[in-house]
Amino acid sequence: MTTPYVRLDKENAAVLLVDHQAGLLSLVRDIDPDKFKNNVLALADLSKYFDLPTILTTSFEDGPNGPLLPELKEIFPESPFIPRPGQINAWDNEDFVKAVKATGRKQLIIAGVVTEVCVAFPALSAIAEGYEVFVVTDASGTFNEVTRHSAWERMSAAGAHLMTWFGVAAELHRDWRNDVEGLGTLFSNHIPDYRNLINSYTTVQAAKTD
Amino acid sequence: MTTPYVRLDKENAAVLLVDHQAGLLSLVRDIDPDKFKNNVLALADLSKYFDLPTILTTSFEDGPNGPLLPELKEIFPESPFIPRPGQINAWDNEDFVKAVKATGRKQLIIAGVVTEVCVAFPALSAIAEGYEVFVVTDASGTFNEVTRHSAWERMSAAGAHLMTWFGVAAELHRDWRNDVEGLGTLFSNHIPDYRNLINSYTTVQAAKTD
Amino acid sequence: MTTPYVRLDKENAAVLLVDHQAGLLSLVRDIDPDKFKNNVLALADLSKYFDLPTILTTSFEDGPNGPLLPELKEIFPESPFIPRPGQINAWDNEDFVKAVKATGRKQLIIAGVVTEVCVAFPALSAIAEGYEVFVVTDASGTFNEVTRHSAWERMSAAGAHLMTWFGVAAELHRDWRNDVEGLGTLFSNHIPDYRNLINSYTTVQAAKTD
Amino acid sequence: MTTPYVRLDKENAAVLLVDHQAGLLSLVRDIDPDKFKNNVLALADLSKYFDLPTILTTSFEDGPNGPLLPELKEIFPESPFIPRPGQINAWDNEDFVKAVKATGRKQLIIAGVVTEVCVAFPALSAIAEGYEVFVVTDASGTFNEVTRHSAWERMSAAGAHLMTWFGVAAELHRDWRNDVEGLGTLFSNHIPDYRNLINSYTTVQAAKTD
Amino acid sequence: MTTPYVRLDKENAAVLLVDHQAGLLSLVRDIDPDKFKNNVLALADLSKYFDLPTILTTSFEDGPNGPLLPELKEIFPESPFIPRPGQINAWDNEDFVKAVKATGRKQLIIAGVVTEVCVAFPALSAIAEGYEVFVVTDASGTFNEVTRHSAWERMSAAGAHLMTWFGVAAELHRDWRNDVEGLGTLFSNHIPDYRNLINSYTTVQAAKTD
Amino acid sequence: MTTPYVRLDKENAAVLLVDHQAGLLSLVRDIDPDKFKNNVLALADLSKYFDLPTILTTSFEDGPNGPLLPELKEIFPESPFIPRPGQINAWDNEDFVKAVKATGRKQLIIAGVVTEVCVAFPALSAIAEGYEVFVVTDASGTFNEVTRHSAWERMSAAGAHLMTWFGVAAELHRDWRNDVEGLGTLFSNHIPDYRNLINSYTTVQAAKTD
Amino acid sequence: MTTPYVRLDKENAAVLLVDHQAGLLSLVRDIDPDKFKNNVLALADLSKYFDLPTILTTSFEDGPNGPLLPELKEIFPESPFIPRPGQINAWDNEDFVKAVKATGRKQLIIAGVVTEVCVAFPALSAIAEGYEVFVVTDASGTFNEVTRHSAWERMSAAGAHLMTWFGVAAELHRDWRNDVEGLGTLFSNHIPDYRNLINSYTTVQAAKTD
Amino acid sequence: MTTPYVRLDKENAAVLLVDHQAGLLSLVRDIDPDKFKNNVLALADLSKYFDLPTILTTSFEDGPNGPLLPELKEIFPESPFIPRPGQINAWDNEDFVKAVKATGRKQLIIAGVVTEVCVAFPALSAIAEGYEVFVVTDASGTFNEVTRHSAWERMSAAGAHLMTWFGVAAELHRDWRNDVEGLGTLFSNHIPDYRNLINSYTTVQAAKTD
Repeated sequence: MTTPYVRLDKENAAVLLVDHQAGLLSLVRDIDPDKFKNNVLALADLSKYFDLPTILTTSFEDGPNGPLLPELKEIFPESPFIPRPGQINAWDNEDFVKAVKATGRKQLIIAGVVTEVCVAFPALSAIAEGYEVFVVTDASGTFNEVTRHSAWERMSAAGAHLMTWFGVAAELHRDWRNDVEGLGTLFSNHIPDYRNLINSYTTVQAAKTD
Repeated sequence: MTTPYVRLDKENAAVLLVDHQAGLLSLVRDIDPDKFKNNVLALADLSKYFDLPTILTTSFEDGPNGPLLPELKEIFPESPFIPRPGQINAWDNEDFVKAVKATGRKQLIIAGVVTEVCVAFPALSAIAEGYEVFVVTDASGTFNEVTRHSAWERMSAAGAHLMTWFGVAAELHRDWRNDVEGLGTLFSNHIPDYRNLINSYTTVQAAKTD
Repeated sequence: MTTPYVRLDKENAAVLLVDHQAGLLSLVRDIDPDKFKNNVLALADLSKYFDLPTILTTSFEDGPNGPLLPELKEIFPESPFIPRPGQINAWDNEDFVKAVKATGRKQLIIAGVVTEVCVAFPALSAIAEGYEVFVVTDASGTFNEVTRHSAWERMSAAGAHLMTWFGVAAELHRDWRNDVEGLGTLFSNHIPDYRNLINSYTTVQAAKTD
Repeated sequence: MTTPYVRLDKENAAVLLVDHQAGLLSLVRDIDPDKFKNNVLALADLSKYFDLPTILTTSFEDGPNGPLLPELKEIFPESPFIPRPGQINAWDNEDFVKAVKATGRKQLIIAGVVTEVCVAFPALSAIAEGYEVFVVTDASGTFNEVTRHSAWERMSAAGAHLMTWFGVAAELHRDWRNDVEGLGTLFSNHIPDYRNLINSYTTVQAAKTD
Repeated sequence: MTTPYVRLDKENAAVLLVDHQAGLLSLVRDIDPDKFKNNVLALADLSKYFDLPTILTTSFEDGPNGPLLPELKEIFPESPFIPRPGQINAWDNEDFVKAVKATGRKQLIIAGVVTEVCVAFPALSAIAEGYEVFVVTDASGTFNEVTRHSAWERMSAAGAHLMTWFGVAAELHRDWRNDVEGLGTLFSNHIPDYRNLINSYTTVQAAKTD
Repeated sequence: MTTPYVRLDKENAAVLLVDHQAGLLSLVRDIDPDKFKNNVLALADLSKYFDLPTILTTSFEDGPNGPLLPELKEIFPESPFIPRPGQINAWDNEDFVKAVKATGRKQLIIAGVVTEVCVAFPALSAIAEGYEVFVVTDASGTFNEVTRHSAWERMSAAGAHLMTWFGVAAELHRDWRNDVEGLGTLFSNHIPDYRNLINSYTTVQAAKTD
Repeated sequence: MTTPYVRLDKENAAVLLVDHQAGLLSLVRDIDPDKFKNNVLALADLSKYFDLPTILTTSFEDGPNGPLLPELKEIFPESPFIPRPGQINAWDNEDFVKAVKATGRKQLIIAGVVTEVCVAFPALSAIAEGYEVFVVTDASGTFNEVTRHSAWERMSAAGAHLMTWFGVAAELHRDWRNDVEGLGTLFSNHIPDYRNLINSYTTVQAAKTD
Repeated sequence: MTTPYVRLDKENAAVLLVDHQAGLLSLVRDIDPDKFKNNVLALADLSKYFDLPTILTTSFEDGPNGPLLPELKEIFPESPFIPRPGQINAWDNEDFVKAVKATGRKQLIIAGVVTEVCVAFPALSAIAEGYEVFVVTDASGTFNEVTRHSAWERMSAAGAHLMTWFGVAAELHRDWRNDVEGLGTLFSNHIPDYRNLINSYTTVQAAKTD
């Protein structure tokens, strides 16, 4: 097996959110903006829900790249936030790597903008240092499908695990019985189809008890 | 001119939301669920914002079609709500038509699920009775692009105006100076790209006053 | 209004199925074969369900064009079946036109293969003779999207109503109360998403009575 | 009816092939080159087959626009060929209009490169002078789908009939019995799926006589 | 070779159908519902045809996820059916693994909803325990193409064989002479194009004997 | 004819560029940014080349909508530039309408961002006042294809002519002999394929004179 | 390197054409029929041109699968032709393997219909026996993109080289100087864009010598 | 790891531009011409910016393949330029390989037309000789997506790193502080969205100092 199964473990995983900034988001054209924003917030919410150590970083927040998505700042008011003074690869920033090491986690869940740079560079660096890297492909955006597929191929060839936020949540949770309502709420808040299922179900259930 | 310019007027327009029900939404496959839900709520919010008379109707809410989107009920707690006992074309329901007539409005903004039935039938009936009909295409959903384009063609050929929620809001508002913040908030809440522009702008503006 | 609303009426409508033959179906590439077959059979089933006069015709059934879909023969064993000896436009065949006139109906619902020839030619001829023509776009197939859109545009410009089988069924039925189970069964047999809604609903309902 | 049915008549139709030149063909990106070349040659072959008066014209054949497709010259060695000295709209060239008038035909079948200029301009001019114009959309090419749809919409709104080569052939032929083998060969030479049907059919037929 | 050829063997293969439930199916948007339902039933039918041990499992069948597709229950009335009380990865359920082991088979053919969770998790777990895993990609569905490709890449990198139902059937059957009619019927029931070929062929054959 | 042929005349046409602002451009997602920017500049260059009166207008240039594309300011340093204080429909701004009337032109070529608002509103208003309106569809951008097609349909139904920049240039120029080099340069600067044709041609020509 | 560079060598390569039959071609829907037929014939022509040993095989040619493409029989009248009596994997047929071995070649260029069965099975078998396998992806067709990508992934993971006919021709030829006209003719016959380049070039060249 | 992370180093990288010729560019149909030209020039500009040794090569520049893009000649007037007399694989040309070796670089950044031949062949040859190869996928073009994906798969399987020009620039630059203005200008010249961000930002900044 090229890349054997490594299972996400909520006691051993950390989340790295790289450069989800208002200006850079206008560069993202491989995923529709409504869906992309939802995916990024879903990843943030699941990180909060599973209480994973989360590290935020930005590049030139006070320039044209624009500020970090305000929603992310609100969700992670206490998390390490590393505005990089210039390093393009977040892994070249000592404070960032220190913050990662401080978590003590060996499984890194990474998402960012744009995929082939802000995600791929730290992902490849972390793999080279022995971390297991899980790229959240649908919370990472880039210019178009050519740049996306090239980035995915490069990361996958180096041993990164390609996942999406829903799979990450499911793999971390393991068993619905750990908390049916919590996971259900997470899904309901970010998957309209799922919310519809629940609405339909609870309506019939409610009628039943009448 | 086949269909001359008729300009939406907030003193003369009403909104009809037809069958946005949890079950029926699973039939919608011509627009992505994240985007579609956003469009429907954007239309609801703009109707509220412009204080337009709004009429809600459903088909068999207590059967497999499922309940009306709860968000719509919350936004319009006082609006006429007509659960139809069986009429497929809402215009065949006397209460519905009475509610429309009670608004005194002559411009009807219609959206619903599915486009070729729940939207097209009342739209065509209303045109036949002399109303000006504005179909909100992006808040109306259906099975696929073939059904969508057939429905658009039929309605357009009968004289319906095809619009989208953003155009409806802009045409109703006329001038930003009527309320910059209100319209800006509406757009910011439903267009991630627009919110990013505002976030970037206000960040630089804030820095400027430091 | 270019093409005013004409409402399908089950007492005044007939169905014309033109050249749905095994060989010709291999020419259809604008709709996926699974979906296309389903749409054609859905149209046939609705015609049966509403007891509409239905006329079948083929072109060179014993040559490379192949036999009529056997399912259609089974559904309409008693319907007029006109194998045309050579006329490309079915309306050029006297027997076919006689069969149409014999129905006494003035609303013609037409579908066939391929759209720009076998559907468009009789549709245009019928309009020219004063019939109201309703083209079932999703039960009509052709080579690609260019041929399809050109055909739709030509027919629509001449006054044809573009519809799909689901809209036809809904417009004919008018009111669910006429027969909830019958229409529900029709939809359930041809719309997997709808069947899922019913399955989910009845499961919860059944549990409720336990 | 906006554009009533006008039926192509092989005694009253002429074909205009405008600027199918080697260089200009590299601008065509709305149809795949294999398919586009096939469509153009199919239109040429059908024109030959039905013995329609055909007029060829080019724009700056000895400059970067390149020579007329050699196949067209071979198929129509005797047809009027008008290399225009500069007029972009072929209808502005007196020799071209003279050649059209000399045919005595009132139905003009037009195709060319690029759709919104070389096809649309003479098509609109001819309509304005009272001709019935049939645009062969799949033998006309342009830069992309935006340019194509804009051109189709402009021509259709002015009364042009949008058709494709297969429909043109079928409408001109009227009845297979006029010449089964001739039309079958035309289709077999330009529709691989049709050729396959014939090959399969004749193979079984041949086996049958063994 | 990363993943050497392992050939499916009907004496050594078992089929695992994971969470094809009415509610969850509304989440599937990477394959059209008509086609997806057909693929799932084709896989079920081939499993029955080759008499493969088949295991069914569901997640919260009495909640919003909805009941197992009734057709699957009808096809496999005697097969092990494991409704999981909460485990997301079916492989975490002891009864499920026991049922797998009880088959004595070492080749596992897996399909389910959604691909990146209900299929990928047990597939990766089974590979890790030494099974050969064959994922039936077209009988597995998920939210969109991003989630699908990420899941495929993760499974393929771990050594899973990506196949589709038609390839599975062909690889298991080995030689048409084992049963021409049986395999032909399977294909005819689930591939409209194939059924058309057979209809055309038998029609000519029949004529031949007249 | 619904919309008869009206031919662009360089003595009677004016160009209106509406809201091509840096911020608003990030909302445009129905055309790729490289291509869209090229189309807008091509329209500007052709307006300059044909010496057409050109009017620029913006909405809130000093807010989040951002400044007018600097390239447009450079190309039209002397043209009327109307920053609107709040009117969404440019035609509601008296200065803008005055500037239009001051040109004395009756043919208005309009492009802008976004199509269904900034283009459609003044286009519809101008038609209502008797102008001939030519919408440059490929120099106008919007959120997605649903918003685009709805806007096109509404404008076309009201009598607007849908064109693209290449067609506008060709229709204004009429005859290459008016200025071969000038038009060739315009095309070469904005159509890479055309520039390649010229490069290849001139290379061989140059070799020929050696 | 997972799959190191192996360079096609015209002294060591053979071509296997598997099941390009008239009936089976109607199953191919992942490539347009015009393009697919062209690709298959291009591969046949290049095999002829480079004088590669070529082996043809079919499955049930006298049943619904239909006869081999007649063009292939004409191009390879003397080549081994193995109509398989039932084996689905051609490699299971002893005559076929004997014919392969008789060529003495170790590089096998394979194409066929459908990709995941008729191509993948013998490709995987040949790799397992030590051959270098080059799959010609664009001369191999299947039902849809899901089946195609699954098949590509399976073959690539097993060590197959994915190529297309143009690359195969170029790699075999090595140097244009071996025969400029021959290779040019091959490309010109199967790539319309290339033929246009040559036509434009030779036209200017010819003018030069005048 | 199949292909471990190798980081581009501006002291160790060279750029190879293969066959970006005017004629061959008309064969490129997997990327839009506006975007493709921009990508090629962006790669050239970044090579210049980072002062990387750059080698240009062409195939039959004085024949139908056409001349090298003039812009490339202008950007690299002093770079080695190797017009190949016939070798299809540039690596078969001794002068080309000598030029590569003369750079002393071990990381080769390659782009060209068409991807599966002019890029893939030298890329595979260079890998076989121990170079690290970085393919710039978006500055390499080919006939269609089938040829592209096959070429990517073959190169990736052999150990090539798939990148795009933006990622190459970012990886070479390492840290914005090395030269903010230089890299910003490069991006601004080739990414309209990025230029818009800068324009919006500097406008507000400028206003701030008023």
